[in-house]
Amino acid sequence: MSESLELGVCYYPEQWHPSRWREDAARMAALGIRLVRIGEFAWSRLEPRPGEYVWQWLDDAIETLAAAGLRVMLGTPTACPPRWLVDAHPDILAVGADGRVRDFGSRRHYCFSSAAYRRESRRIVTAMVERYGQVPAIVAWQTDNEYGCHDTVLSYSAAALEGFRVWLRGRYADVAALNAAWGNVFWSQEYGSFDEVGLPVGTVTEANPAHRLDFWRYSSEQVVDFNREQVEILRRLAPGRTVVHNFMGFSTDFDHHAVADDLDVAGWDSYPLGFLEWLDIPNAEKVRYARQGHPDVAAFHHDLYRGVGRGRFWVVEQQPGPVNWAPFNPAPLAGMVRAWTLEAYAHGAEVVSYFRWRQAPFAQEQMHSGLNLPDGREDTATDEVRAVVHDLQQLPPVSRRRAPVALLFDYQADWVFRIQPQGAGFRYMPLVMEFYSALRRLGLDVDVLPAGACLDGYQLVVVPSLPIVDEGLVSGLERIPATVLVGPRTGSKTQHHGIPAELPPGPLKRILPMTVRRVESLRVGLTERVEIEGAYVECGHWLEHVEAPTDPVLRSESGVGIWYRHDRFNYLACWPPARLLDHVLRALCAEAGIAVMQLPDGLRIARRGGLAFAFNYDRVTVEVPAPTGAQFLLGARMLQPAGVAAWADPPAK
Amino acid sequence: MSESLELGVCYYPEQWHPSRWREDAARMAALGIRLVRIGEFAWSRLEPRPGEYVWQWLDDAIETLAAAGLRVMLGTPTACPPRWLVDAHPDILAVGADGRVRDFGSRRHYCFSSAAYRRESRRIVTAMVERYGQVPAIVAWQTDNEYGCHDTVLSYSAAALEGFRVWLRGRYADVAALNAAWGNVFWSQEYGSFDEVGLPVGTVTEANPAHRLDFWRYSSEQVVDFNREQVEILRRLAPGRTVVHNFMGFSTDFDHHAVADDLDVAGWDSYPLGFLEWLDIPNAEKVRYARQGHPDVAAFHHDLYRGVGRGRFWVVEQQPGPVNWAPFNPAPLAGMVRAWTLEAYAHGAEVVSYFRWRQAPFAQEQMHSGLNLPDGREDTATDEVRAVVHDLQQLPPVSRRRAPVALLFDYQADWVFRIQPQGAGFRYMPLVMEFYSALRRLGLDVDVLPAGACLDGYQLVVVPSLPIVDEGLVSGLERIPATVLVGPRTGSKTQHHGIPAELPPGPLKRILPMTVRRVESLRVGLTERVEIEGAYVECGHWLEHVEAPTDPVLRSESGVGIWYRHDRFNYLACWPPARLLDHVLRALCAEAGIAVMQLPDGLRIARRGGLAFAFNYDRVTVEVPAPTGAQFLLGARMLQPAGVAAWADPPAK
Amino acid sequence: MSESLELGVCYYPEQWHPSRWREDAARMAALGIRLVRIGEFAWSRLEPRPGEYVWQWLDDAIETLAAAGLRVMLGTPTACPPRWLVDAHPDILAVGADGRVRDFGSRRHYCFSSAAYRRESRRIVTAMVERYGQVPAIVAWQTDNEYGCHDTVLSYSAAALEGFRVWLRGRYADVAALNAAWGNVFWSQEYGSFDEVGLPVGTVTEANPAHRLDFWRYSSEQVVDFNREQVEILRRLAPGRTVVHNFMGFSTDFDHHAVADDLDVAGWDSYPLGFLEWLDIPNAEKVRYARQGHPDVAAFHHDLYRGVGRGRFWVVEQQPGPVNWAPFNPAPLAGMVRAWTLEAYAHGAEVVSYFRWRQAPFAQEQMHSGLNLPDGREDTATDEVRAVVHDLQQLPPVSRRRAPVALLFDYQADWVFRIQPQGAGFRYMPLVMEFYSALRRLGLDVDVLPAGACLDGYQLVVVPSLPIVDEGLVSGLERIPATVLVGPRTGSKTQHHGIPAELPPGPLKRILPMTVRRVESLRVGLTERVEIEGAYVECGHWLEHVEAPTDPVLRSESGVGIWYRHDRFNYLACWPPARLLDHVLRALCAEAGIAVMQLPDGLRIARRGGLAFAFNYDRVTVEVPAPTGAQFLLGARMLQPAGVAAWADPPAK
Repeated sequence: MSESLELGVCYYPEQWHPSRWREDAARMAALGIRLVRIGEFAWSRLEPRPGEYVWQWLDDAIETLAAAGLRVMLGTPTACPPRWLVDAHPDILAVGADGRVRDFGSRRHYCFSSAAYRRESRRIVTAMVERYGQVPAIVAWQTDNEYGCHDTVLSYSAAALEGFRVWLRGRYADVAALNAAWGNVFWSQEYGSFDEVGLPVGTVTEANPAHRLDFWRYSSEQVVDFNREQVEILRRLAPGRTVVHNFMGFSTDFDHHAVADDLDVAGWDSYPLGFLEWLDIPNAEKVRYARQGHPDVAAFHHDLYRGVGRGRFWVVEQQPGPVNWAPFNPAPLAGMVRAWTLEAYAHGAEVVSYFRWRQAPFAQEQMHSGLNLPDGREDTATDEVRAVVHDLQQLPPVSRRRAPVALLFDYQADWVFRIQPQGAGFRYMPLVMEFYSALRRLGLDVDVLPAGACLDGYQLVVVPSLPIVDEGLVSGLERIPATVLVGPRTGSKTQHHGIPAELPPGPLKRILPMTVRRVESLRVGLTERVEIEGAYVECGHWLEHVEAPTDPVLRSESGVGIWYRHDRFNYLACWPPARLLDHVLRALCAEAGIAVMQLPDGLRIARRGGLAFAFNYDRVTVEVPAPTGAQFLLGARMLQPAGVAAWADPPAK
Repeated sequence: MSESLELGVCYYPEQWHPSRWREDAARMAALGIRLVRIGEFAWSRLEPRPGEYVWQWLDDAIETLAAAGLRVMLGTPTACPPRWLVDAHPDILAVGADGRVRDFGSRRHYCFSSAAYRRESRRIVTAMVERYGQVPAIVAWQTDNEYGCHDTVLSYSAAALEGFRVWLRGRYADVAALNAAWGNVFWSQEYGSFDEVGLPVGTVTEANPAHRLDFWRYSSEQVVDFNREQVEILRRLAPGRTVVHNFMGFSTDFDHHAVADDLDVAGWDSYPLGFLEWLDIPNAEKVRYARQGHPDVAAFHHDLYRGVGRGRFWVVEQQPGPVNWAPFNPAPLAGMVRAWTLEAYAHGAEVVSYFRWRQAPFAQEQMHSGLNLPDGREDTATDEVRAVVHDLQQLPPVSRRRAPVALLFDYQADWVFRIQPQGAGFRYMPLVMEFYSALRRLGLDVDVLPAGACLDGYQLVVVPSLPIVDEGLVSGLERIPATVLVGPRTGSKTQHHGIPAELPPGPLKRILPMTVRRVESLRVGLTERVEIEGAYVECGHWLEHVEAPTDPVLRSESGVGIWYRHDRFNYLACWPPARLLDHVLRALCAEAGIAVMQLPDGLRIARRGGLAFAFNYDRVTVEVPAPTGAQFLLGARMLQPAGVAAWADPPAK
Repeated sequence: MSESLELGVCYYPEQWHPSRWREDAARMAALGIRLVRIGEFAWSRLEPRPGEYVWQWLDDAIETLAAAGLRVMLGTPTACPPRWLVDAHPDILAVGADGRVRDFGSRRHYCFSSAAYRRESRRIVTAMVERYGQVPAIVAWQTDNEYGCHDTVLSYSAAALEGFRVWLRGRYADVAALNAAWGNVFWSQEYGSFDEVGLPVGTVTEANPAHRLDFWRYSSEQVVDFNREQVEILRRLAPGRTVVHNFMGFSTDFDHHAVADDLDVAGWDSYPLGFLEWLDIPNAEKVRYARQGHPDVAAFHHDLYRGVGRGRFWVVEQQPGPVNWAPFNPAPLAGMVRAWTLEAYAHGAEVVSYFRWRQAPFAQEQMHSGLNLPDGREDTATDEVRAVVHDLQQLPPVSRRRAPVALLFDYQADWVFRIQPQGAGFRYMPLVMEFYSALRRLGLDVDVLPAGACLDGYQLVVVPSLPIVDEGLVSGLERIPATVLVGPRTGSKTQHHGIPAELPPGPLKRILPMTVRRVESLRVGLTERVEIEGAYVECGHWLEHVEAPTDPVLRSESGVGIWYRHDRFNYLACWPPARLLDHVLRALCAEAGIAVMQLPDGLRIARRGGLAFAFNYDRVTVEVPAPTGAQFLLGARMLQPAGVAAWADPPAK
């Protein structure tokens, strides 16, 4: 991991007159920008007609940027196949769940299963990398753009059907094995051959969840394969360059860990205000954080993508002002662009790149602000970038260290709960956020890791939920001495989306000798009351009824076991409300020897190397929990809204 | 009607290894189960390839059950045509209102109008009944499964279009007659021939309600015909067996009375917690009854299907624990499975059959609990079944008697109000439930009967609403001496969904000399205030303005007539709120000489023979209104939540 | 403009037996009806088979009406092509945004781009006008019926695609010009030829707003062309007759000004209770005005269509009782039919025509009340019509004069904000209504005019919003001495739906030297607090950040400029809440020398000639703000609910 932060910006030379480029580059450099991402939506300019490549303008643009001392990240243009290509190969287009072709006219209009598009993608990428792979100023490449954005992973096209059948044949060999794995005897769903299997869509009532889960896996693998084909070309023709993809926040339709295994760095696109609008939280909370973003959302993604990138992540697109795509698009509170940038740094980011240099006055994103106004003058965020440059100069270069807590995140878990929530509103990401926020309210750093990650060295391992538990995870948890906390529905499904023969928590029973006999999903208002430290907490949403050899640590008033433990392994048999989680995590941290603190609402702490950072997401001034006599490198003990403080933090012994 | 209750269970031998069958059968018998339903989803196992019948496994399964002393109900497997059959005859599939084929991959994927499917249905049923029709252990047959479930009555297929045209030709003979009946002069909708008539779907704005109503009638008749074809085979090849269909609760898309005319017994599937979620009632009510179900919903269906079955009904599927298909799926309160079973008995059920013996660990319904867990051990409900067996031994065998009150229920009424509600949320079933609940709150037993039923012997006849009134009903009501209460919109439509020439209440004017001049639908908050017994009630939703020769019995504060009467015939000119209905019904019962009681909230009474039963749906203990000195056969005067009491009730003189 | 009011009625002789016509005509005449609209849905009776015209019945009907002294408005029947015609030319049918054909079976089932339908429309209109163009009793013609109703302007048919490409070629000549205008370099959306351009529908994420805006313009022009083709036939064959179209309230999908340029009079259809249901206002407000309608909605449309008709407008359809098509359909408060009629008169209407003479007992609108019940007897409204006839006799004939205030209304503005609202719920019509209602609460008369209208003589010009500002408007505003108030987002877009190079307010900068640097859309609860006259107002929805050479007149507490002015030009940088608008408008009226009054809630004033009228939309009696000693021609100072007062008003000096 790099020890310092490189600032970047997204730039579209093709959208501006070349006469403007030199001034833009000079101003970027003067501002402290070092990395410029270009090219990822420019196919129609690079190949305006079939096979007719036009490189000159891009040559010039790169040269202009390089001449100003800027480094370039070049994007492959495959997120936007041009009109002529789609007309030549209409099967490039994906098909929606409603059976309609998802047409040309915006972006991401392609089906990952389309053989024609795979071929064309390799062709344009090869041509581009042949030309630019060795250019010294080009230090990094981005593959495509935001895979999966606009719900583009699952496509119900003829190509997907054909590919899925081939994939199933490879997975099951014999259709009888598929019938058994999916339980197709139920409702006479048995197939006589792989050619009889359809896509799980348009059925009279819900399709078989095993069918859906396999189709989701197939679809996710198409993304992995699509990306890998580009990476292979890059490895061959652009050796030594950093290969990145910019994942979209809150995107879970494909396995980011698997895609990133082929990358050098996981990039992600951070839009804290837009993401706040996407959250399913009460309006009052949305109003409270409307101009700051939710205090845990950007942080969570940083920690997630640090894990996805096996330690390395970039913020490829950073929101600099109001965006255009959320239901409501307010402006960031003064100071938040700086705070978001420094928070990314504190969480280990190597690059923060603003989207975009200048607001475009046309087309779909014309209301998306940039560092500059459409007329070329500076917009509000530019001064905050200047402040960041100054801030970074106050800080010694340090690297992020391992956190005391590992939180396991699994994309497949999200698919399983979307396929069969069993209760309206049971979704994976909000459940993960419950655990993540609770840890962060205690002032803890968290590493978000895939379920198969090495967990050596962690004192506490938190598994918000993992319906399909691999034997390897159980062995891994047995091997390390960490305290482990497991959330509801963990171990509740087999690989084929069935109920384990031994009942949930399935393979986890080896370390948590208990059985989940029954589960309940509960509407708003239907809760179990639990007494914690003299006060009552209401547990709603989800409740499990457990059979265990020993008494639970905590029961509801009516006697339902809520918190089970066996040795150092803990299980929560409910959707845990915040106060319950706080209580449980305090106890587990005490046991694991992890120091916690009580943070004011809206304040969050992150540590990088020997530095502690505090970020005030609240709208009131709060006191930072720095040790007495702490030397502040940034900010001060009393931290204003959008304020950032940093001080030397003695590393934990 | 049988005098005792037979317990049953739904079992899927094809889903478990045959080595398990003997133990399952033994345990069923030991538990007190007498009837086992099997086979209704097993087509792909009975005919895995076209024409290749495989009976051996089913022979063995039936023999195993019979050997344990169990009686069998065998289902025809037509709810789930296998993949190969659908591929051979793609026109089997229905078409949705959105124009898309409703594809294979779940169940009920067939169009009732498909000639190919009619043929295939007769073929498989004939083959099955030829083999099993005379097996002694098989005492009953179920046709298909839950006709209409998943919105499968109306299909907009080419077959439906063709069938509808033929049907219209049969009904109207001359297209001019159709044009006149539907009022097609309006908006130039006239047809030149029957071949010009389309399906009432996909129109720019709403289609002609007469067009829609006729298509609904046609579609309902297809269900009747489809079922009749199977019944005819059963009558011929399985003489003496009881023929049942399991209707689904809250299902009104086709005429259950007409289907049941070909059956021996009306079956229905009772899921009190799932049905609660489907109700359109305030959240607080749903929370209150979340684990018990609404106190009137199962009871209403018992009374309805007793009428549908001309006195005979079975609960073919009884919920034993959490289900998988409602928005929220909580567990029943301890005791409710027993209470639901005994309540069915009190309402006249001959059979209550639990769904299902053992929870399947795979496919769509893997989260639907059974009497046994997926691992084969007993789930919670089993002990409640044991309690039922014990309870039944305390009770003398008695039969249900005629209730004092008849409530008329009409499937076509539901279609009429869905086709033209005239006010958002005006739906037939909630209106019926207003009247039914009010009667039950007064401790009354109710017979729910079709509009054409013989009403001799009833003291009170309640018609919540019947938009299309038949002349025969008017004569019938004139002939008997009962007090009659008629709700809003009764008599408001002709056979062709028009307004009667004499204006509403149409033919009813002979007994209710009044005219509804104007109707209003009212948004929430817009109400008429009515003073009742010194307090105010707000009448919302629906209001009628009536012209009558005499003053109404009750007026709103602003002068709108609310309750009209003529002789023993009463008309309510509004959607009656609970307190208004209580008031009206008390008065009418007093007049009709029917004794009423004031029941605590959540308590309900039902009488079977000389026994009175009380069921506590509330979450608090309540006092049962048994006479002083009553001898309790079950329970006691103070009745706990989910509790059941029974005592000898002197029959009304 | 006519000086008196003519009462009319909509009549469908084809729906009743001819033996009834004479009596109907006699009763109409006796009631005071002068004009009868007929024929607009009668194609299937005029041409039951291709080319086989049947005129006799219509000849008779017209003769019967004329014989009773009635004048006739005949409608062209093109809103309802008959079945045989659609079958002969299936491409007549429009295609929805979901890709499905919008089928026969209701009305307006045609695509404006269909060449076949254009031809057939001209054919039937020619045939009809050839027969009836010179009939003396026929004094007016209505073209088609409610263009655009049921969302019928935009059609995604093959004909529309072809037409749109031709239209684009005409507009841009060179596809490179189109690419530049739309900014197609963004996301590689560039086209190589006009034949590559598709319709802006079915895209993966939103289509290019410039693409959508041009398609909307194209579609609006098809309506204009379609109408013009009929008008040209009428001008030729029915010289001297008044040509009208009946526009539907709250209909904005096409440019009514452009259509009306070919008409003599703008008609509109006024359903105050149905329209109330369509408003996005709190339930309490809907309940309050449920039986009166919103106090500004009918008035606004009168003022709008007076402008659309260049001074002349008719209410072609006036609601007389409950309708059938709104979510809830209550009855008008007693007196409101009279009040609505007199209000139309006060606003300058020449005709008010009730829909319909007699309620039809069949088909889609059977629950739509008329002046007569389905059985032919009088319904409630008839007495109110009698009252109107009497009222009109109390009033001297006078004409509406120019109002002191002009409010500019622009259909394209509505399209722009629907294409890119940038904040959920930002819609043009509610914003316009904020300004209109505020003016009316001050007792002002308002002329609602197109953006290109001559503004000479107005003291105050209000522009609620006009995203695309024409240079001519700026010059016009500079030329006149009026005070000008401009709302948010005015001048924010170019002709091609881009951001102006000089930033908003674009061309307006010449008179409002300021720059909108940033805009924000705000969710409910996120507001800026503004102090006005010692109290606080919360500004939500929308906020702009302005850079201006001088201080704003008003700032929010946090310092955001809310009201800017330069000389007599004023700009509001927010979605103005009512109290803010009241404050601003009072100040501007004072400055412009316009007298205002403070009206009680629900009371509204309108002036015609030397008469002032007051209308009480409230449910309580209010005092009319007539001068002391005013002579009341209608009503009195204390005005009951639904009451109308009129008195002589000295014209402003």
